[in-house]
Amino acid sequence: MSVLIVGSTALDSIKTPQAGHPRLLGGSASHAAVAASFFAPVRLIGVVGDDFPRRYLQLFRRHGIDLEGLQRREGRTFHWSGEYEANMNRRRTLATELGVFETFTPTLPAAQRDTPFVLLANIAPSLQHHVLDQMRRPKFVAADTMDLWLNIALKDLLGLLRRVDLFILNDSEAQQLTKEDNVIAALPRLHRLGPKYVIIKKGEHGSILSSPAGLFLAPAYPLRRVVDPTGAGDSFAGGLMGHLASAPGRVDAHLRQAMVYGSVVASFCCEGFGLNRTTKIQRADIERRVKELEKLTRV
Amino acid sequence: MSVLIVGSTALDSIKTPQAGHPRLLGGSASHAAVAASFFAPVRLIGVVGDDFPRRYLQLFRRHGIDLEGLQRREGRTFHWSGEYEANMNRRRTLATELGVFETFTPTLPAAQRDTPFVLLANIAPSLQHHVLDQMRRPKFVAADTMDLWLNIALKDLLGLLRRVDLFILNDSEAQQLTKEDNVIAALPRLHRLGPKYVIIKKGEHGSILSSPAGLFLAPAYPLRRVVDPTGAGDSFAGGLMGHLASAPGRVDAHLRQAMVYGSVVASFCCEGFGLNRTTKIQRADIERRVKELEKLTRV
Repeated sequence: MSVLIVGSTALDSIKTPQAGHPRLLGGSASHAAVAASFFAPVRLIGVVGDDFPRRYLQLFRRHGIDLEGLQRREGRTFHWSGEYEANMNRRRTLATELGVFETFTPTLPAAQRDTPFVLLANIAPSLQHHVLDQMRRPKFVAADTMDLWLNIALKDLLGLLRRVDLFILNDSEAQQLTKEDNVIAALPRLHRLGPKYVIIKKGEHGSILSSPAGLFLAPAYPLRRVVDPTGAGDSFAGGLMGHLASAPGRVDAHLRQAMVYGSVVASFCCEGFGLNRTTKIQRADIERRVKELEKLTRV
Repeated sequence: MSVLIVGSTALDSIKTPQAGHPRLLGGSASHAAVAASFFAPVRLIGVVGDDFPRRYLQLFRRHGIDLEGLQRREGRTFHWSGEYEANMNRRRTLATELGVFETFTPTLPAAQRDTPFVLLANIAPSLQHHVLDQMRRPKFVAADTMDLWLNIALKDLLGLLRRVDLFILNDSEAQQLTKEDNVIAALPRLHRLGPKYVIIKKGEHGSILSSPAGLFLAPAYPLRRVVDPTGAGDSFAGGLMGHLASAPGRVDAHLRQAMVYGSVVASFCCEGFGLNRTTKIQRADIERRVKELEKLTRV
Protein backbone atom coordinates (compact mmCIF):
# COMPACT_ATOMS: atom_id res chain seq x y z
CA MET A 1 0.00 0.00 0.00
CA SER A 2 1.06 3.63 -0.48
CA VAL A 3 2.21 6.23 2.05
CA LEU A 4 1.33 9.88 1.72
CA ILE A 5 3.89 12.12 3.37
CA VAL A 6 3.51 15.83 4.05
CA GLY A 7 6.20 17.98 5.62
CA SER A 8 8.95 20.41 4.74
CA THR A 9 11.04 20.15 1.59
CA ALA A 10 14.08 22.30 2.19
CA LEU A 11 17.61 23.23 1.40
CA ASP A 12 19.79 22.66 4.46
CA SER A 13 23.17 24.27 5.10
CA ILE A 14 24.82 22.20 7.80
CA LYS A 15 28.03 22.67 9.74
CA THR A 16 29.64 20.13 12.02
CA PRO A 17 33.02 20.41 13.77
CA GLN A 18 34.43 18.31 10.88
CA ALA A 19 32.86 19.84 7.79
CA GLY A 20 30.16 22.01 6.28
CA HIS A 21 27.83 21.55 3.33
CA PRO A 22 25.58 24.24 1.82
CA ARG A 23 22.16 23.77 0.27
CA LEU A 24 21.77 20.03 0.78
CA LEU A 25 18.43 18.39 0.06
CA GLY A 26 16.66 18.46 3.43
CA GLY A 27 13.38 18.92 5.24
CA SER A 28 11.24 16.49 7.18
CA ALA A 29 9.25 15.28 4.17
CA SER A 30 12.36 14.77 2.02
CA HIS A 31 14.05 12.58 4.61
CA ALA A 32 10.87 10.69 5.45
CA ALA A 33 9.92 10.16 1.80
CA VAL A 34 13.31 8.74 0.79
CA ALA A 35 13.31 6.50 3.90
CA ALA A 36 9.80 5.20 3.19
CA SER A 37 10.56 4.67 -0.50
CA PHE A 38 12.67 1.58 0.26
CA PHE A 39 9.51 -0.23 1.35
CA ALA A 40 6.40 1.22 -0.31
CA PRO A 41 5.20 3.68 -2.97
CA VAL A 42 5.42 7.22 -1.62
CA ARG A 43 3.40 10.34 -2.40
CA LEU A 44 5.12 13.54 -1.39
CA ILE A 45 3.15 16.67 -0.48
CA GLY A 46 5.23 19.85 -0.16
CA VAL A 47 6.44 22.99 -1.83
CA VAL A 48 9.72 24.12 -3.39
CA GLY A 49 10.84 27.39 -4.96
CA ASP A 50 12.24 28.04 -8.40
CA ASP A 51 15.78 27.75 -6.97
CA PHE A 52 15.20 24.08 -6.09
CA PRO A 53 17.85 22.10 -7.95
CA ARG A 54 16.51 19.86 -10.68
CA ARG A 55 18.84 17.08 -9.51
CA TYR A 56 16.93 16.89 -6.23
CA LEU A 57 13.68 16.34 -8.14
CA GLN A 58 15.44 13.63 -10.13
CA LEU A 59 16.64 12.09 -6.90
CA PHE A 60 13.06 11.86 -5.62
CA ARG A 61 11.98 10.33 -8.93
CA ARG A 62 14.78 7.77 -8.83
CA HIS A 63 13.28 6.66 -5.51
CA GLY A 64 9.92 6.24 -7.22
CA ILE A 65 8.43 9.09 -5.19
CA ASP A 66 5.23 10.52 -6.69
CA LEU A 67 5.70 14.30 -7.00
CA GLU A 68 2.22 15.21 -8.19
CA GLY A 69 1.55 16.86 -4.80
CA LEU A 70 4.85 18.74 -4.73
CA GLN A 71 4.08 22.35 -5.59
CA ARG A 72 6.68 24.41 -7.45
CA ARG A 73 6.29 28.12 -6.75
CA GLU A 74 8.03 31.33 -7.70
CA GLY A 75 10.40 32.33 -4.93
CA ARG A 76 13.00 30.67 -2.78
CA THR A 77 12.88 27.20 -1.29
CA PHE A 78 12.68 26.96 2.51
CA HIS A 79 16.26 27.20 3.75
CA TRP A 80 17.53 26.08 7.14
CA SER A 81 21.06 26.45 8.34
CA GLY A 82 22.43 25.00 11.53
CA GLU A 83 25.56 24.01 13.37
CA TYR A 84 26.31 20.96 15.53
CA GLU A 85 28.49 20.82 18.61
CA ALA A 86 31.29 18.28 18.96
CA ASN A 87 29.15 15.52 20.51
CA MET A 88 26.41 15.94 17.84
CA ASN A 89 23.69 15.92 20.48
CA ARG A 90 23.26 19.67 20.46
CA ARG A 91 22.72 21.94 17.52
CA ARG A 92 21.83 25.56 17.04
CA THR A 93 19.88 27.13 14.24
CA LEU A 94 21.88 29.80 12.43
CA ALA A 95 19.13 30.91 10.05
CA THR A 96 15.64 29.97 8.90
CA GLU A 97 14.32 31.48 5.68
CA LEU A 98 10.78 30.30 5.03
CA GLY A 99 10.61 31.43 1.38
CA VAL A 100 7.71 29.77 -0.49
CA PHE A 101 6.93 27.80 2.67
CA GLU A 102 5.45 30.91 4.26
CA THR A 103 2.31 30.78 2.12
CA PHE A 104 2.20 27.02 1.58
CA THR A 105 -1.17 25.31 1.62
CA PRO A 106 -0.91 21.60 0.97
CA THR A 107 -3.38 20.46 -1.64
CA LEU A 108 -3.80 16.79 -2.31
CA PRO A 109 -4.23 15.51 -5.85
CA ALA A 110 -7.67 13.90 -6.06
CA ALA A 111 -6.16 10.48 -6.71
CA GLN A 112 -4.16 10.65 -3.47
CA ARG A 113 -7.02 11.29 -1.06
CA ASP A 114 -7.53 7.57 -0.55
CA THR A 115 -3.92 6.83 0.39
CA PRO A 116 -4.17 4.34 3.29
CA PHE A 117 -1.04 5.38 5.23
CA VAL A 118 -0.42 9.02 6.11
CA LEU A 119 2.69 10.46 7.70
CA LEU A 120 2.28 14.02 8.90
CA ALA A 121 5.99 14.74 9.17
CA ASN A 122 7.22 17.75 11.11
CA ILE A 123 5.44 20.88 9.83
CA ALA A 124 2.99 23.39 11.35
CA PRO A 125 0.09 21.48 12.98
CA SER A 126 -2.42 23.64 11.07
CA LEU A 127 -1.00 22.23 7.81
CA GLN A 128 -1.07 18.71 9.23
CA HIS A 129 -4.78 19.28 10.00
CA HIS A 130 -5.34 20.62 6.51
CA VAL A 131 -3.92 17.45 4.94
CA LEU A 132 -6.05 15.21 7.15
CA ASP A 133 -9.14 17.26 6.22
CA GLN A 134 -8.58 16.23 2.61
CA MET A 135 -8.08 12.51 3.26
CA ARG A 136 -10.82 9.89 2.95
CA ARG A 137 -10.69 7.46 5.88
CA PRO A 138 -7.00 6.62 5.93
CA LYS A 139 -6.08 3.28 7.49
CA PHE A 140 -3.31 4.64 9.71
CA VAL A 141 -2.18 8.19 10.46
CA ALA A 142 1.11 9.10 12.18
CA ALA A 143 2.24 12.58 13.19
CA ASP A 144 5.67 13.88 14.10
CA THR A 145 6.33 17.33 15.53
CA MET A 146 9.03 19.60 16.99
CA ASP A 147 9.50 21.82 20.04
CA LEU A 148 8.67 24.96 17.99
CA TRP A 149 5.03 23.86 17.60
CA LEU A 150 4.73 23.10 21.32
CA ASN A 151 5.75 26.70 21.89
CA ILE A 152 3.74 28.55 19.24
CA ALA A 153 0.94 26.23 18.07
CA LEU A 154 0.09 24.05 21.05
CA LYS A 155 -3.67 24.30 20.62
CA ASP A 156 -3.47 23.17 16.98
CA LEU A 157 -1.17 20.34 17.96
CA LEU A 158 -3.46 19.13 20.77
CA GLY A 159 -6.38 19.15 18.32
CA LEU A 160 -4.32 17.12 15.87
CA LEU A 161 -3.44 14.51 18.48
CA ARG A 162 -7.12 13.60 18.75
CA ARG A 163 -7.06 12.71 15.04
CA VAL A 164 -3.96 10.51 14.74
CA ASP A 165 -3.25 6.86 15.49
CA LEU A 166 0.46 7.26 16.22
CA PHE A 167 2.26 10.25 17.73
CA ILE A 168 6.04 10.29 17.32
CA LEU A 169 8.08 12.75 19.38
CA ASN A 170 11.43 12.92 21.07
CA ASP A 171 12.17 12.68 24.77
CA SER A 172 12.63 16.40 25.38
CA GLU A 173 9.39 17.20 23.53
CA ALA A 174 7.60 14.57 25.65
CA GLN A 175 8.95 16.23 28.78
CA GLN A 176 7.93 19.67 27.57
CA LEU A 177 4.42 18.53 26.64
CA THR A 178 3.67 16.50 29.78
CA LYS A 179 5.83 18.34 32.38
CA GLU A 180 7.06 14.88 33.33
CA ASP A 181 10.82 14.18 33.44
CA ASN A 182 10.48 10.41 33.35
CA VAL A 183 9.61 9.29 29.80
CA ILE A 184 7.88 6.12 31.04
CA ALA A 185 5.62 8.21 33.24
CA ALA A 186 5.04 10.63 30.33
CA LEU A 187 3.58 7.88 28.12
CA PRO A 188 0.13 7.48 29.75
CA ARG A 189 -0.23 11.27 29.70
CA LEU A 190 0.50 11.31 25.98
CA HIS A 191 -2.11 8.61 25.35
CA ARG A 192 -4.64 10.73 27.22
CA LEU A 193 -4.15 13.39 24.53
CA GLY A 194 -5.59 10.99 21.97
CA PRO A 195 -3.16 8.68 20.16
CA LYS A 196 -3.52 4.92 20.59
CA TYR A 197 0.19 4.52 19.83
CA VAL A 198 3.01 6.73 21.07
CA ILE A 199 6.68 6.48 20.15
CA ILE A 200 9.28 8.47 22.09
CA LYS A 201 12.58 8.83 20.22
CA LYS A 202 15.76 8.97 22.28
CA GLY A 203 18.37 9.42 19.54
CA GLU A 204 21.37 7.12 20.03
CA HIS A 205 19.49 5.46 22.92
CA GLY A 206 16.75 4.06 20.69
CA SER A 207 13.03 4.57 21.02
CA ILE A 208 10.07 3.38 23.09
CA LEU A 209 6.69 2.32 21.73
CA SER A 210 3.68 2.44 23.99
CA SER A 211 0.60 0.67 22.71
CA PRO A 212 -2.39 -1.23 24.09
CA ALA A 213 -0.13 -4.31 24.00
CA GLY A 214 2.39 -2.63 26.31
CA LEU A 215 5.85 -1.21 25.83
CA PHE A 216 8.50 -2.09 23.27
CA LEU A 217 12.09 -0.92 23.69
CA ALA A 218 13.63 -0.47 20.25
CA PRO A 219 17.39 -0.14 20.02
CA ALA A 220 19.25 2.39 17.90
CA TYR A 221 21.79 0.88 15.52
CA PRO A 222 25.18 1.55 17.18
CA LEU A 223 27.32 3.90 15.09
CA ARG A 224 30.99 4.54 15.60
CA ARG A 225 30.78 7.83 13.82
CA VAL A 226 27.90 10.22 13.35
CA VAL A 227 28.58 12.52 10.41
CA ASP A 228 25.32 14.50 10.49
CA PRO A 229 22.20 13.55 12.48
CA THR A 230 19.93 16.01 10.62
CA GLY A 231 16.85 14.15 9.43
CA ALA A 232 17.47 11.01 11.51
CA GLY A 233 14.13 11.35 13.28
CA ASP A 234 12.33 11.97 9.97
CA SER A 235 14.09 8.95 8.45
CA PHE A 236 12.99 6.86 11.41
CA ALA A 237 9.36 7.91 10.96
CA GLY A 238 9.55 7.43 7.18
CA GLY A 239 11.17 4.00 7.36
CA LEU A 240 8.66 2.93 9.99
CA MET A 241 5.63 4.07 7.96
CA GLY A 242 7.04 2.63 4.75
CA HIS A 243 7.50 -0.74 6.40
CA LEU A 244 3.99 -0.65 7.90
CA ALA A 245 2.51 0.18 4.49
CA SER A 246 4.32 -2.80 2.98
CA ALA A 247 3.16 -5.29 5.61
CA PRO A 248 -0.13 -7.15 5.18
CA GLY A 249 -2.88 -7.27 7.80
CA ARG A 250 -3.13 -5.45 11.10
CA VAL A 251 -0.74 -2.61 11.88
CA ASP A 252 -0.30 -3.80 15.50
CA ALA A 253 1.39 -6.95 14.31
CA HIS A 254 4.16 -5.08 12.52
CA LEU A 255 4.89 -2.02 14.64
CA ARG A 256 7.88 -3.48 16.48
CA GLN A 257 9.53 -4.68 13.30
CA ALA A 258 8.74 -1.36 11.64
CA MET A 259 10.57 0.49 14.42
CA VAL A 260 13.66 -1.63 13.83
CA TYR A 261 13.51 -0.76 10.11
CA GLY A 262 13.05 2.91 11.01
CA SER A 263 16.08 2.78 13.33
CA VAL A 264 18.21 1.23 10.63
CA VAL A 265 17.30 3.79 7.96
CA ALA A 266 17.98 6.53 10.55
CA SER A 267 21.43 5.03 11.17
CA PHE A 268 22.31 5.35 7.49
CA CYS A 269 21.00 8.90 7.50
CA CYS A 270 23.48 9.81 10.27
CA GLU A 271 26.42 8.46 8.29
CA GLY A 272 26.40 11.21 5.68
CA PHE A 273 25.48 14.88 5.30
CA GLY A 274 21.85 15.47 4.44
CA LEU A 275 20.57 12.57 2.36
CA ASN A 276 24.00 11.76 0.89
CA ARG A 277 24.28 8.35 2.49
CA THR A 278 20.61 7.35 2.56
CA THR A 279 20.28 7.85 -1.19
CA LYS A 280 23.22 5.53 -1.85
CA ILE A 281 22.02 2.44 -0.02
CA GLN A 282 20.03 -0.51 -1.31
CA ARG A 283 17.27 -2.49 0.36
CA ALA A 284 19.82 -5.27 0.97
CA ASP A 285 21.96 -2.89 3.08
CA ILE A 286 18.93 -2.21 5.24
CA GLU A 287 18.10 -5.90 5.62
CA ARG A 288 21.70 -6.61 6.67
CA ARG A 289 21.58 -4.05 9.47
CA VAL A 290 18.12 -5.16 10.59
CA LYS A 291 19.45 -8.71 11.03
CA GLU A 292 22.53 -7.38 12.78
CA LEU A 293 20.49 -5.19 15.13
CA GLU A 294 18.30 -8.14 16.04
CA LYS A 295 21.46 -10.11 16.92
CA LEU A 296 22.82 -7.23 18.99
CA THR A 297 19.77 -7.31 21.22
CA ARG A 298 19.16 -11.06 21.45
CA VAL A 299 19.92 -12.33 24.93
CA MET B 1 30.46 -20.78 42.73
CA SER B 2 31.19 -17.90 45.09
CA VAL B 3 31.78 -14.21 44.41
CA LEU B 4 34.21 -12.14 46.42
CA ILE B 5 33.27 -8.48 46.48
CA VAL B 6 35.44 -5.63 47.72
CA GLY B 7 34.33 -2.01 47.83
CA SER B 8 32.95 0.58 50.18
CA THR B 9 30.59 -0.20 53.01
CA ALA B 10 29.04 3.08 54.01
CA LEU B 11 26.29 5.03 55.64
CA ASP B 12 24.55 7.20 53.05
CA SER B 13 22.44 10.26 53.78
CA ILE B 14 20.40 10.91 50.68
CA LYS B 15 18.08 13.73 49.70
CA THR B 16 15.80 13.83 46.71
CA PRO B 17 13.21 16.48 45.83
CA GLN B 18 10.61 14.17 47.42
CA ALA B 19 12.29 12.99 50.63
CA GLY B 20 15.46 12.53 52.63
CA HIS B 21 16.87 9.60 54.58
CA PRO B 22 19.88 9.74 56.92
CA ARG B 23 22.45 6.97 57.51
CA LEU B 24 21.07 4.36 55.15
CA LEU B 25 23.10 1.24 54.47
CA GLY B 26 25.13 2.13 51.39
CA GLY B 27 28.47 1.84 49.63
CA SER B 28 29.45 0.05 46.43
CA ALA B 29 30.20 -3.27 48.14
CA SER B 30 26.96 -3.28 50.15
CA HIS B 31 24.81 -2.74 47.05
CA ALA B 32 26.80 -5.20 44.95
CA ALA B 33 26.86 -7.87 47.67
CA VAL B 34 23.12 -7.81 48.28
CA ALA B 35 22.50 -7.86 44.50
CA ALA B 36 24.85 -10.82 43.97
CA SER B 37 23.42 -12.71 46.95
CA PHE B 38 20.23 -13.54 45.03
CA PHE B 39 22.27 -15.80 42.76
CA ALA B 40 25.43 -17.06 44.48
CA PRO B 41 27.27 -17.18 47.82
CA VAL B 42 28.94 -13.82 48.46
CA ARG B 43 32.06 -12.92 50.44
CA LEU B 44 32.22 -9.28 51.43
CA ILE B 45 35.52 -7.47 51.95
CA GLY B 46 35.26 -4.04 53.54
CA VAL B 47 35.47 -2.04 56.74
CA VAL B 48 32.93 -0.46 59.10
CA GLY B 49 33.28 1.64 62.25
CA ASP B 50 31.87 1.03 65.70
CA ASP B 51 28.87 3.19 64.80
CA PHE B 52 27.76 0.72 62.14
CA PRO B 53 24.25 -0.38 63.09
CA ARG B 54 23.99 -4.02 64.11
CA ARG B 55 20.81 -4.34 62.05
CA TYR B 56 22.83 -3.74 58.89
CA LEU B 57 25.14 -6.64 59.78
CA GLN B 58 22.06 -8.76 60.37
CA LEU B 59 20.72 -7.69 57.01
CA PHE B 60 23.92 -8.89 55.29
CA ARG B 61 23.68 -12.18 57.18
CA ARG B 62 20.04 -12.67 56.20
CA HIS B 63 21.28 -12.48 52.61
CA GLY B 64 23.79 -15.23 53.40
CA ILE B 65 26.71 -12.85 52.89
CA ASP B 66 29.97 -14.09 54.45
CA LEU B 67 31.30 -11.27 56.67
CA GLU B 68 34.60 -12.87 57.68
CA GLY B 69 36.42 -10.29 55.52
CA LEU B 70 34.44 -7.32 56.85
CA GLN B 71 36.69 -5.50 59.30
CA ARG B 72 35.15 -3.74 62.30
CA ARG B 73 37.34 -0.86 63.53
CA GLU B 74 37.18 1.80 66.18
CA GLY B 75 35.97 5.04 64.67
CA ARG B 76 33.25 6.12 62.33
CA THR B 77 31.92 4.32 59.29
CA PHE B 78 32.49 5.96 55.90
CA HIS B 79 29.66 8.45 55.46
CA TRP B 80 28.48 9.95 52.20
CA SER B 81 25.75 12.49 51.84
CA GLY B 82 24.31 13.70 48.58
CA GLU B 83 21.35 15.36 46.95
CA TYR B 84 19.57 14.60 43.68
CA GLU B 85 18.02 17.08 41.28
CA ALA B 86 14.44 16.74 40.10
CA ASN B 87 15.20 14.55 37.10
CA MET B 88 17.41 12.18 39.20
CA ASN B 89 20.15 12.24 36.56
CA ARG B 90 22.30 14.73 38.42
CA ARG B 91 23.43 14.63 41.98
CA ARG B 92 25.84 16.62 44.08
CA THR B 93 27.89 15.40 46.99
CA LEU B 94 27.17 17.37 50.16
CA ALA B 95 29.76 15.68 52.38
CA THR B 96 32.19 12.76 52.40
CA GLU B 97 33.63 11.60 55.73
CA LEU B 98 36.08 8.74 55.19
CA GLY B 99 36.26 7.66 58.83
CA VAL B 100 37.73 4.15 59.19
CA PHE B 101 37.93 3.94 55.41
CA GLU B 102 40.89 6.32 55.42
CA THR B 103 43.27 3.67 56.72
CA PHE B 104 41.51 0.60 55.28
CA THR B 105 43.66 -2.18 53.91
CA PRO B 106 41.60 -5.09 52.62
CA THR B 107 42.85 -8.40 53.95
CA LEU B 108 41.40 -11.59 52.60
CA PRO B 109 40.68 -14.50 54.92
CA ALA B 110 42.89 -17.42 53.80
CA ALA B 111 39.88 -19.51 52.84
CA GLN B 112 38.65 -16.80 50.45
CA ARG B 113 41.79 -16.47 48.30
CA ASP B 114 40.55 -19.14 45.94
CA THR B 115 37.18 -17.50 45.26
CA PRO B 116 36.60 -17.97 41.51
CA PHE B 117 34.63 -14.76 40.83
CA VAL B 118 35.93 -11.39 41.98
CA LEU B 119 34.12 -8.07 41.79
CA LEU B 120 36.32 -5.09 42.50
CA ALA B 121 33.47 -2.68 43.14
CA ASN B 122 34.08 1.06 43.16
CA ILE B 123 36.93 1.85 45.58
CA ALA B 124 40.47 3.27 45.22
CA PRO B 125 42.32 1.36 42.47
CA SER B 126 45.26 0.76 44.84
CA LEU B 127 42.91 -1.22 47.10
CA GLN B 128 41.49 -3.10 44.11
CA HIS B 129 45.10 -4.03 43.22
CA HIS B 130 45.75 -5.09 46.79
CA VAL B 131 42.82 -7.52 46.74
CA LEU B 132 43.89 -9.02 43.43
CA ASP B 133 47.43 -9.48 44.82
CA GLN B 134 45.98 -11.77 47.47
CA MET B 135 43.88 -13.91 45.09
CA ARG B 136 44.99 -17.26 43.65
CA ARG B 137 44.13 -17.44 39.94
CA PRO B 138 40.51 -16.32 40.01
CA LYS B 139 38.35 -17.50 37.14
CA PHE B 140 36.87 -14.10 36.30
CA VAL B 141 37.66 -10.62 37.60
CA ALA B 142 35.48 -7.55 37.05
CA ALA B 143 36.28 -3.99 38.10
CA ASP B 144 34.02 -0.96 38.45
CA THR B 145 35.27 2.58 39.06
CA MET B 146 34.17 6.21 39.34
CA ASP B 147 35.23 9.59 37.92
CA LEU B 148 37.15 10.44 41.12
CA TRP B 149 39.76 7.74 40.38
CA LEU B 150 40.17 8.91 36.81
CA ASN B 151 41.04 12.31 38.28
CA ILE B 152 43.28 11.36 41.19
CA ALA B 153 44.48 7.77 40.64
CA LEU B 154 44.61 7.29 36.87
CA LYS B 155 47.96 5.48 36.85
CA ASP B 156 46.77 2.91 39.41
CA LEU B 157 43.54 2.45 37.46
CA LEU B 158 45.35 1.91 34.15
CA GLY B 159 47.59 -0.68 35.85
CA LEU B 160 44.49 -2.44 37.20
CA LEU B 161 42.85 -2.59 33.77
CA ARG B 162 45.66 -4.84 32.57
CA ARG B 163 44.68 -7.33 35.30
CA VAL B 164 40.91 -7.61 34.87
CA ASP B 165 38.66 -9.55 32.50
CA LEU B 166 35.73 -7.13 32.59
CA PHE B 167 35.77 -3.38 33.05
CA ILE B 168 32.45 -1.76 33.95
CA LEU B 169 32.12 2.01 33.71
CA ASN B 170 29.51 4.57 32.82
CA ASP B 171 29.26 6.62 29.65
CA SER B 172 30.69 9.83 31.07
CA GLU B 173 33.64 7.95 32.58
CA ALA B 174 34.24 6.27 29.23
CA GLN B 175 34.26 9.68 27.57
CA GLN B 176 36.62 11.08 30.18
CA LEU B 177 39.02 8.14 29.92
CA THR B 178 39.15 7.90 26.12
CA LYS B 179 38.49 11.55 25.13
CA GLU B 180 35.91 10.10 22.76
CA ASP B 181 32.33 11.44 22.81
CA ASN B 182 30.84 8.48 20.95
CA VAL B 183 30.57 5.47 23.29
CA ILE B 184 30.76 2.99 20.41
CA ALA B 185 34.03 4.54 19.27
CA ALA B 186 35.26 4.56 22.88
CA LEU B 187 34.94 0.78 23.18
CA PRO B 188 37.98 -0.31 21.11
CA ARG B 189 40.07 2.24 23.01
CA LEU B 190 38.94 0.75 26.31
CA HIS B 191 39.85 -2.77 25.13
CA ARG B 192 43.32 -1.50 24.24
CA LEU B 193 43.79 -0.69 27.94
CA GLY B 194 43.56 -4.39 28.74
CA PRO B 195 40.11 -5.83 29.44
CA LYS B 196 38.68 -8.50 27.13
CA TYR B 197 35.15 -7.44 28.09
CA VAL B 198 33.91 -3.89 28.54
CA ILE B 199 30.48 -2.80 29.70
CA ILE B 200 29.41 0.84 29.41
CA LYS B 201 26.46 1.70 31.64
CA LYS B 202 24.04 4.36 30.40
CA GLY B 203 21.61 4.54 33.32
CA GLU B 204 17.98 4.52 32.18
CA HIS B 205 19.21 3.89 28.61
CA GLY B 206 20.64 0.46 29.43
CA SER B 207 24.18 -0.77 28.88
CA ILE B 208 26.46 -1.98 26.11
CA LEU B 209 28.72 -5.01 26.26
CA SER B 210 31.72 -5.20 23.98
CA SER B 211 33.39 -8.59 23.77
CA PRO B 212 35.30 -10.69 21.21
CA ALA B 213 31.86 -11.90 20.05
CA GLY B 214 30.78 -8.31 19.28
CA LEU B 215 28.36 -5.91 20.89
CA PHE B 216 25.29 -6.58 22.99
CA LEU B 217 22.77 -3.83 23.71
CA ALA B 218 21.16 -4.51 27.09
CA PRO B 219 18.01 -2.61 27.97
CA ALA B 220 17.28 -0.99 31.31
CA TYR B 221 14.03 -2.08 32.92
CA PRO B 222 11.63 0.84 32.33
CA LEU B 223 10.58 2.50 35.58
CA ARG B 224 7.74 4.94 35.97
CA ARG B 225 9.24 6.35 39.13
CA VAL B 226 12.82 6.47 40.33
CA VAL B 227 12.91 6.99 44.09
CA ASP B 228 16.71 6.93 44.58
CA PRO B 229 19.23 5.77 41.97
CA THR B 230 22.12 5.54 44.47
CA GLY B 231 23.78 2.14 44.13
CA ALA B 232 22.04 1.20 40.87
CA GLY B 233 25.36 0.77 39.06
CA ASP B 234 26.75 -1.30 41.94
CA SER B 235 23.59 -3.42 41.98
CA PHE B 236 23.96 -3.96 38.23
CA ALA B 237 27.56 -5.14 38.65
CA GLY B 238 26.66 -7.31 41.65
CA GLY B 239 23.66 -8.92 40.00
CA LEU B 240 25.69 -9.55 36.86
CA MET B 241 28.59 -11.19 38.74
CA GLY B 242 26.25 -13.19 40.97
CA HIS B 243 24.47 -14.56 37.93
CA LEU B 244 27.78 -15.40 36.20
CA ALA B 245 28.99 -17.23 39.32
CA SER B 246 25.81 -19.29 39.37
CA ALA B 247 26.01 -20.31 35.70
CA PRO B 248 27.92 -23.43 34.68
CA GLY B 249 30.63 -23.47 32.02
CA ARG B 250 32.16 -20.62 30.08
CA VAL B 251 31.52 -17.05 31.18
CA ASP B 252 31.07 -15.88 27.55
CA ALA B 253 27.95 -17.98 27.21
CA HIS B 254 26.18 -16.20 30.06
CA LEU B 255 27.28 -12.57 29.89
CA ARG B 256 24.23 -11.29 28.00
CA GLN B 257 21.80 -12.99 30.33
CA ALA B 258 23.83 -11.80 33.32
CA MET B 259 23.48 -8.20 32.13
CA VAL B 260 19.72 -8.57 31.99
CA TYR B 261 19.75 -9.89 35.57
CA GLY B 262 22.00 -6.99 36.60
CA SER B 263 19.61 -4.49 34.97
CA VAL B 264 16.66 -5.97 36.78
CA VAL B 265 18.29 -5.89 40.22
CA ALA B 266 19.34 -2.29 39.50
CA SER B 267 15.73 -1.43 38.69
CA PHE B 268 14.58 -2.64 42.09
CA CYS B 269 17.41 -0.67 43.70
CA CYS B 270 16.06 2.55 42.13
CA GLU B 271 12.59 1.96 43.56
CA GLY B 272 13.56 2.62 47.17
CA PHE B 273 16.02 4.65 49.20
CA GLY B 274 19.35 2.93 49.72
CA LEU B 275 18.80 -0.82 49.88
CA ASN B 276 15.24 -0.52 51.19
CA ARG B 277 13.61 -2.06 48.14
CA THR B 278 16.34 -4.47 47.07
CA THR B 279 16.34 -6.15 50.47
CA LYS B 280 12.61 -6.77 50.29
CA ILE B 281 12.44 -8.66 47.01
CA GLN B 282 12.59 -12.39 46.35
CA ARG B 283 14.29 -14.27 43.55
CA ALA B 284 10.85 -14.77 41.97
CA ASP B 285 10.40 -11.00 41.67
CA ILE B 286 13.66 -10.84 39.75
CA GLU B 287 12.69 -13.71 37.44
CA ARG B 288 9.37 -12.02 36.70
CA ARG B 289 11.06 -8.79 35.58
CA VAL B 290 13.70 -10.67 33.59
CA LYS B 291 10.95 -12.38 31.61
CA GLU B 292 9.13 -9.10 31.21
CA LEU B 293 12.25 -7.29 30.03
CA GLU B 294 12.89 -10.00 27.45
CA LYS B 295 9.35 -9.51 26.16
CA LEU B 296 9.79 -5.73 26.03
CA THR B 297 12.72 -6.10 23.66
CA ARG B 298 11.51 -8.98 21.49
CA VAL B 299 10.73 -7.79 17.97
